[in-house]
Amino acid sequence: MTETENIVYDVVVLGAGPVGENVADRTRAARLSTAVVESELVGGECSYWACMPSKALLRPVIAQADARRLPGLSASVQGPLDTAAVLARRDEYTSHWKDDGQIGWLDGIGADLYRGHGRLTGERTVSVTGPDGTRQTLTARHAVAVCTGTRAVLPDLPGLDGIKPWTSREATSAQAAPGRLVVVGGGVVATEMATAWQALGSRVTLLVRGKGLLNRMEPFAGELVAEGLAEAGVTVRTGTSVESVTRQDGTVVVVTDTGDRIEADEILFATGRAPHTGDIGLDTVGLEPGSWLEVDDSLRVTGSEWLYAVGDVNHRALLTHQGKYQARIAGAAIAARASGAALSQDAWGAHTATADHAAVPQVVFTDPEAAAVGLSLAEAEQAGHRVRAVDYDLGNVSGASLYAEGYRGRARMVVDLEREILLGVTFVGPGVGELIHSATIAVAGQVPISRLWHAVPSYPTISEVWLRLLEAYRDN
Amino acid sequence: MTETENIVYDVVVLGAGPVGENVADRTRAARLSTAVVESELVGGECSYWACMPSKALLRPVIAQADARRLPGLSASVQGPLDTAAVLARRDEYTSHWKDDGQIGWLDGIGADLYRGHGRLTGERTVSVTGPDGTRQTLTARHAVAVCTGTRAVLPDLPGLDGIKPWTSREATSAQAAPGRLVVVGGGVVATEMATAWQALGSRVTLLVRGKGLLNRMEPFAGELVAEGLAEAGVTVRTGTSVESVTRQDGTVVVVTDTGDRIEADEILFATGRAPHTGDIGLDTVGLEPGSWLEVDDSLRVTGSEWLYAVGDVNHRALLTHQGKYQARIAGAAIAARASGAALSQDAWGAHTATADHAAVPQVVFTDPEAAAVGLSLAEAEQAGHRVRAVDYDLGNVSGASLYAEGYRGRARMVVDLEREILLGVTFVGPGVGELIHSATIAVAGQVPISRLWHAVPSYPTISEVWLRLLEAYRDN
Repeated sequence: MTETENIVYDVVVLGAGPVGENVADRTRAARLSTAVVESELVGGECSYWACMPSKALLRPVIAQADARRLPGLSASVQGPLDTAAVLARRDEYTSHWKDDGQIGWLDGIGADLYRGHGRLTGERTVSVTGPDGTRQTLTARHAVAVCTGTRAVLPDLPGLDGIKPWTSREATSAQAAPGRLVVVGGGVVATEMATAWQALGSRVTLLVRGKGLLNRMEPFAGELVAEGLAEAGVTVRTGTSVESVTRQDGTVVVVTDTGDRIEADEILFATGRAPHTGDIGLDTVGLEPGSWLEVDDSLRVTGSEWLYAVGDVNHRALLTHQGKYQARIAGAAIAARASGAALSQDAWGAHTATADHAAVPQVVFTDPEAAAVGLSLAEAEQAGHRVRAVDYDLGNVSGASLYAEGYRGRARMVVDLEREILLGVTFVGPGVGELIHSATIAVAGQVPISRLWHAVPSYPTISEVWLRLLEAYRDN
Repeated sequence: MTETENIVYDVVVLGAGPVGENVADRTRAARLSTAVVESELVGGECSYWACMPSKALLRPVIAQADARRLPGLSASVQGPLDTAAVLARRDEYTSHWKDDGQIGWLDGIGADLYRGHGRLTGERTVSVTGPDGTRQTLTARHAVAVCTGTRAVLPDLPGLDGIKPWTSREATSAQAAPGRLVVVGGGVVATEMATAWQALGSRVTLLVRGKGLLNRMEPFAGELVAEGLAEAGVTVRTGTSVESVTRQDGTVVVVTDTGDRIEADEILFATGRAPHTGDIGLDTVGLEPGSWLEVDDSLRVTGSEWLYAVGDVNHRALLTHQGKYQARIAGAAIAARASGAALSQDAWGAHTATADHAAVPQVVFTDPEAAAVGLSLAEAEQAGHRVRAVDYDLGNVSGASLYAEGYRGRARMVVDLEREILLGVTFVGPGVGELIHSATIAVAGQVPISRLWHAVPSYPTISEVWLRLLEAYRDN
């Protein structure tokens, strides 16, 4: 420690990922002085090791798969992807893991960046330890927002550290395709990275502990994605756990609980996330280090007047876009409370993150794509709603069969029978990634079924599935 | 004439295109006996000479363009499309211009098909002249629905008949790509067919009388589509009329009003549509043969108790999906009136085609795609709304730039400042075709801006443009 300064801000934000940036954007828009503390790259996980690089890897894979399903075009799509070119494009989309652009953005909104590790040291105070050991104390007049996100969790297997397994970071930033890749997990990271690396030249084996993939979506999502992975050449083994992993002469050797031995060049564990709250001084404010932070709908930590937890750390929805949504609301709530204004805390109010409960969308960029918003049938039933699920085979929609020969996909809407509004919608199939926002507006807008009949889908698009779902609801 | 029978139905439908089929579907669902009269193929223009074949021609073109904009994939997409394979797929999607499948569908709903030319002969009566000259008289207890659609209109140029010009029918059903094709017109058929045939091997020249393309959309739609056509190799000449057309030794010779002489192998006139009402006996019920039929919001002809005009013939919106929407409403209105039930005739009611005025969507399947719903800025201003247009450059959306390298596109939403709802939305760019339905639900659902903030677009999709538009509206 060389020096201690105490600097006072209206707001101190821990973490400069998309969530921290958006909190700062909103508090700065309200003319609150704002400090942002970041120990790694400004822009966060999403920009460098998640959304951006993964989608840069996946987009050519999906476009190639789409092209190959079209007679007249398919024959001219020869050979594999140019992996080096795809990786080079990915490197551009991560700005080569440099954050100058993002720093310029923070500067542009007038927020002060503190590079270093931030820790709470008590009520409204944060100590920042810079890379050179310098320590500064920041005091927040109104609020501290914890936006530190999550990190990958590795399973408790002996000797795992020694074999240098991949997590989502290595899987999205690798500079070459391993010859053989084992992916452990059945969620979004696992299925997306299996899709990407298989197409980029690896022979991928996917080991899934449970029965199916994408367990948080409707069951058919995981089923269709598993089919797609298998057709792309991925070996999918469900009901399989890893018993041990070693590295022998550079080769990863995986032994499964079924006694199988799998060799690979790399192994990716996509087996869960833990909050980045272990070393941010939570104990100094009466909270448990390493815990997820419980918040109310204005994103304020339960029991606190000044502490907010926004984005993945509050465990409401581990998705960049939903964290940014929370950040806009938290920033507005902080600003309103700072000015003494009344908050709009009714459902769907300006200071209430109602969508976290009712309308979280997600797109899985696999082939087929899987997209969902709101509650699945099981979730809706569990929540006590009186519901009916209406399904439709997307392959029977003209726009879908025109989109891809032999189109396979499925749609489901979950209807609240009391209010005749939609609680959730799921689309699985090629080209549905942009279709889900129609459902997000229907669910968040609580647009009644009777009005959805007047929202005419353009013919012949895949969107016409909306008409088919309404007809199926009417006729059955 | 060999014989006259008089057969009584509850409902007689003239025209078995998608619109007539949907009217029959709804009246049959209400257990009304229904006759459908068709002089050509059951399934109509859309199935054989419009939506279906045009989209079958265009889909591989668009998928190829998409693939070519992705480093790592583009290099492997070699050479032109396999035109024969594309045409063969198109032939499948038109069922080789056979309507057995559609006849089976009509049969399945229990409607009776009369093949032949139907003409009104007075109140509630229709005379059908079969292909063999047999004449039958159908009497409708409750309603006659005219769903005869439109035909292409050729300009009044001397000698045009002799050169056998293409209309939309030939353009969608041609069995080979002409070496040189002149397309006259600047609307949807012209731009889509120029896109298709240029990619399928023709050298296309597009002659547009006005200053721009796609005049019914926001001006930037036509501008971006014109750029796309030019980049694909189409010669686009705006402000150019055809003075004369002749065919000399098989070659079409076009002379323009600017004195240019253009040679081609075929010429397509996509210069407008006229209603198919010239020879359906309108004079026998006091209406003008050949006119568009004016209707109320239940699709009933003004001044009539029993005559409906549904789909293109009423000139409300010349689009298959909108005609089908009208058909559902007309069928329901016919059924309600037949049973003496009260109609739901408030705006957005079950018997009121409100979307015809407020929320007609359209997707133009060019490269880039152009999609719009509701009112353009000019239309909204002309209608007297106090509005603000909010624009956003789609190329600045992460999901768009990931979708295609060098992405170009634009979005606009037209906000009603009194009610803070959307009156219209336009998206132009690659991959926006499925995105427009989100706007259709927002416009038809009259979802307030304050609620749209809770409809979170999934990151990183093109749909994130919604967030950018909301931010632009908020901040300016």
